[in-house]
Amino acid sequence: MAGRTARRRVLRISLPGDATAPVTAERADFLAAEEPLGIRIDGEALAITMRTPGDDIDLTAGFLVSEGVITSPEDITGIVICSGERCGHADHGHADHGGAAGTGNIADVTLRPGLTLRPELRRNFMTTSACGVCGKTSIAELAATTDLDLSADQARVTPATLAGLPDALRAAQRVFDRTGGLHAAGLFTADGDLLAVREDVGRHNAVDKIVGWALRTGRLPLSGCVLLVSGRASFELVQKAVLAGIPVLAAVSAPSSLAADLAQQAGLTLVGFLRGGSMNVYTGQQRVLAAAQPAGSRPGGSMPAAN
Amino acid sequence: MAGRTARRRVLRISLPGDATAPVTAERADFLAAEEPLGIRIDGEALAITMRTPGDDIDLTAGFLVSEGVITSPEDITGIVICSGERCGHADHGHADHGGAAGTGNIADVTLRPGLTLRPELRRNFMTTSACGVCGKTSIAELAATTDLDLSADQARVTPATLAGLPDALRAAQRVFDRTGGLHAAGLFTADGDLLAVREDVGRHNAVDKIVGWALRTGRLPLSGCVLLVSGRASFELVQKAVLAGIPVLAAVSAPSSLAADLAQQAGLTLVGFLRGGSMNVYTGQQRVLAAAQPAGSRPGGSMPAAN
Repeated sequence: MAGRTARRRVLRISLPGDATAPVTAERADFLAAEEPLGIRIDGEALAITMRTPGDDIDLTAGFLVSEGVITSPEDITGIVICSGERCGHADHGHADHGGAAGTGNIADVTLRPGLTLRPELRRNFMTTSACGVCGKTSIAELAATTDLDLSADQARVTPATLAGLPDALRAAQRVFDRTGGLHAAGLFTADGDLLAVREDVGRHNAVDKIVGWALRTGRLPLSGCVLLVSGRASFELVQKAVLAGIPVLAAVSAPSSLAADLAQQAGLTLVGFLRGGSMNVYTGQQRVLAAAQPAGSRPGGSMPAAN
Repeated sequence: MAGRTARRRVLRISLPGDATAPVTAERADFLAAEEPLGIRIDGEALAITMRTPGDDIDLTAGFLVSEGVITSPEDITGIVICSGERCGHADHGHADHGGAAGTGNIADVTLRPGLTLRPELRRNFMTTSACGVCGKTSIAELAATTDLDLSADQARVTPATLAGLPDALRAAQRVFDRTGGLHAAGLFTADGDLLAVREDVGRHNAVDKIVGWALRTGRLPLSGCVLLVSGRASFELVQKAVLAGIPVLAAVSAPSSLAADLAQQAGLTLVGFLRGGSMNVYTGQQRVLAAAQPAGSRPGGSMPAAN
């Protein structure tokens, strides 16, 4: 299962029911791995998808079926998974149409002679409801996508405030109540006051709706704010938060490895599994810890040794 | 809230704990609306995103911020939401940069004079982990994307078999146990035997991995099979199932309106909210109903009048 999970340090915070100080513990946690896979057809870049490594040849083949490019195994001469530097055309003559089971973040596909991509497919790869990697020409560009640094944002948010956000978001979701099936994003002040809530079938759209509202009402960058999303935290959601200048992103469910990495790099506070009065803080812990400490106490003083 | 939800007929099936016949009831249900939004910049198509209608001007503005196209409200001269036929350039001189609050599935953006799109952005809009609309040049093409018809597939699956699938999928998820944060797709026979399970941070990738595996092992089309996904059922997931020839798609959570519409059109059986021994059947009910009836009984005999 190498490569499908990634180990990260995490600060676990639980709020006791008796309103005493939060209990904090640092520990190692496994995150679902998220990495870009670039798909090349006959040597030319076609698409980048954010995926969990593993079964990459199947992913590439299935993607080409779903896009109507191929319909049978014979349509593929070879698929080679490789790293950018060491990848040539996949014309290595593998009898197995699966190609070599290499590792890397590039899938190099050779179609059977005579089968070519419809030109409009290459021209018109479009965005979807989960699109933070759109418009990136290469994996290198994707990785360098954000050079913004939120480290200087002095926002502080207490664990108790964070713990109250999911209920506040849920209470403000109007469409979810009717359908049981909508993502939501809520923008809060660091004191927990709700500024805006948006719902969408695509969680990335819900965040874009918040950001667009903030732009149009002159609120960008959203310094000092907390963004809560109803689902998981992906690379793309962290990217959107950073671009909007939001220093704290909280998710009801799990973050991916790349979400945590980008958050670390950009100085964003990333909170996951925010539910039932507890939470994991993956990066930017100073914004939560400092707020949790009574004035004058030693920061981190309640944290036991890492285990 | 007009347009954010859509009313559909649904067959609700509950399995009593005492192993007697399933209880069925037909009723109206509200689904989260899902429709494509085409984004045009200065008259030229840039992207299509699947979204829940509403706040479309904010969505468009936020999308452009997230993509690094704009950074301030002044970068936008106008955004007009309109239908394809009635949309011109958005150069109507609205003082409000939000433009007219029209309705439709096209967002027509005019950038401020001098601000142009980086050419590589237009050329290279890439796919993401949730990509079933990639490569579509227009909303019309998106709607006509699937002319496959699964109506002839004679698969039958009992409610009891369906009810058992989520536990079987969960038991087969290896990475979820470590991370708590991964989507899964499981392919089953109509008798409930697990054929393959794949996990990914992107639910669409998990399905592509299943389809690619099926292609490479000579199993396409996947007639007679049931595909279970751990999350919601979107238009894109239904599209992938149809293209792979899968007659039954079941989701643990809610489907969108467009998912139900495409399933209906393609003759696919769509099951949602499959959890805790009950389920909603949105389309293709004959595959479930016929299997639920003892031989010789009147199909639908246990169904009370719709209310």
